[in-house]
Amino acid sequence: VRVLVTGGSGFIGRWTVKSLEQRGIEVFVCGRTIPEPPLDNFIQADLLETASAEKVLAHAKPDVIVHAAWFVNHGAFWRTEANLDWVAASMRLARVAADHGVRRFVGVGTCFEYDWPVDGNCVEGQTPIRPTTLYAVAKDAVRRVLEEYAACDAFEFAWARLFYLFGPFEHPERLASSTALKLARNQPAPLTSGLAVRDFMDVRDAGAGLAALAVSPIKGTVNIASGKGIAIADLARLLQRSAGGGQLQIGALPDRAGEPPRIVADVSRMHEAVGFTPQNSIEERLEETYRWWQQQALQGL
Amino acid sequence: VRVLVTGGSGFIGRWTVKSLEQRGIEVFVCGRTIPEPPLDNFIQADLLETASAEKVLAHAKPDVIVHAAWFVNHGAFWRTEANLDWVAASMRLARVAADHGVRRFVGVGTCFEYDWPVDGNCVEGQTPIRPTTLYAVAKDAVRRVLEEYAACDAFEFAWARLFYLFGPFEHPERLASSTALKLARNQPAPLTSGLAVRDFMDVRDAGAGLAALAVSPIKGTVNIASGKGIAIADLARLLQRSAGGGQLQIGALPDRAGEPPRIVADVSRMHEAVGFTPQNSIEERLEETYRWWQQQALQGL
Repeated sequence: VRVLVTGGSGFIGRWTVKSLEQRGIEVFVCGRTIPEPPLDNFIQADLLETASAEKVLAHAKPDVIVHAAWFVNHGAFWRTEANLDWVAASMRLARVAADHGVRRFVGVGTCFEYDWPVDGNCVEGQTPIRPTTLYAVAKDAVRRVLEEYAACDAFEFAWARLFYLFGPFEHPERLASSTALKLARNQPAPLTSGLAVRDFMDVRDAGAGLAALAVSPIKGTVNIASGKGIAIADLARLLQRSAGGGQLQIGALPDRAGEPPRIVADVSRMHEAVGFTPQNSIEERLEETYRWWQQQALQGL
Repeated sequence: VRVLVTGGSGFIGRWTVKSLEQRGIEVFVCGRTIPEPPLDNFIQADLLETASAEKVLAHAKPDVIVHAAWFVNHGAFWRTEANLDWVAASMRLARVAADHGVRRFVGVGTCFEYDWPVDGNCVEGQTPIRPTTLYAVAKDAVRRVLEEYAACDAFEFAWARLFYLFGPFEHPERLASSTALKLARNQPAPLTSGLAVRDFMDVRDAGAGLAALAVSPIKGTVNIASGKGIAIADLARLLQRSAGGGQLQIGALPDRAGEPPRIVADVSRMHEAVGFTPQNSIEERLEETYRWWQQQALQGL
């Protein structure tokens, strides 16, 4: 089996590629920028250009596509018109995939497609869908069209919904990354009250889960997440423990209005249907993640 | 105000253009094929080509876009992969429209976006959405993304949901057209039991309704329809009356399983918010439509 991972040098894609390679699978990666160090299996292509999908598929001839590419610039991605470009690019990629006889297409969605449930548990096919940002609406629209396209015998289709992530190569201004960096630099790390409970997963495990979904025969939507809630303040405290101290200022930042108290994935499908369960605890993963950011801080980031 | 109508030489688009021109509005039309006779305001462009939207908007500089273009080949349109191409083309058109400062964007949807309600009445924003064909899923996906894009201040956005149409230039193998043609040729016209009640509107009125929505300030979804149900057999009988007889064979064709008994639009928004009410009765419109098809039959169609 040959797998093409779009966005395969990105935050999630790189770990998906690694996990597939560890399974002995032949993987191709496409992206705009040639990675450093260069990779044999890298195809330089900007999927926003119309002809790219055809070029990439003619070269990679994949059986399976994991479509992890999207516009993800920190902060900007929620409302940017680039979301429309990625809807269009995803349509083109799916069309060309079907033309090339790609057997299975795995898309990458987000927990922000869900209407936040009262009990905080997000269950595939059960929790209502009500995205409220252009990013999540665009992702959901892609899922809707490709699911129906698959029903017209285009290919087998699965959709991974990712939740809250942390880990190496995260944007340095996000929750775990910025807190770890500040602790490593011995700077004060201000936080909200941090009472909100979220489903946090290490991006390496999310990548491995996405890889497991890619090689499984499971169709439809699967939450790729930890299935466990952790309060944001507790996540920060675990990073502080890894740092052996530091100035965590819980409550120094105002809470955002209207934030749901709890967002946690139901992961029965991931465990039972896909057969994927991460082996490391969040404590271990946050410890590793702290060490990674500490290295970055030492290198002057 | 300048209005660009994509698909403006199509079944619905041509009447939208006519109605806008009757209001004294400057209209541009774009399409793949130069119309016969040629029009001054026609811009030849295939919106499926990436650069076309930019070219058309640079030329037409519209304040308002009515986006009526889509793949509509009889029968094929329900499941064709061309629906994905039109999702992509619609994303591009919307992006370029926002870049060019287009004030208002009106998309064309379908009653097939609705989950058929038990009472048969389709009410905007109330009847659940549950499209079950690639065509309707693709239309619905465009609506979802553009509605959210509009909420990000791209432009003002409205969405017309059209129901069942008949009239001049319809594909000759559809219900009203094929029945009228057979009656005109004095051939037997076989039908199902024809008990299903549908909201039928003359396409000239639908085009006028779309034009009224285009020049109104109303945002969101508006059913453009008659608001009245007619049994399919009764529609055929009205055509038969216009023909002054003919061999209508009601019940000669098997009924399709699972067809909802009644699909009728709630047209309060169209009447009250948009302020549009067609002036002709369905009897008059079917009479005119029969005469049109009779001419076609006389000319050897």
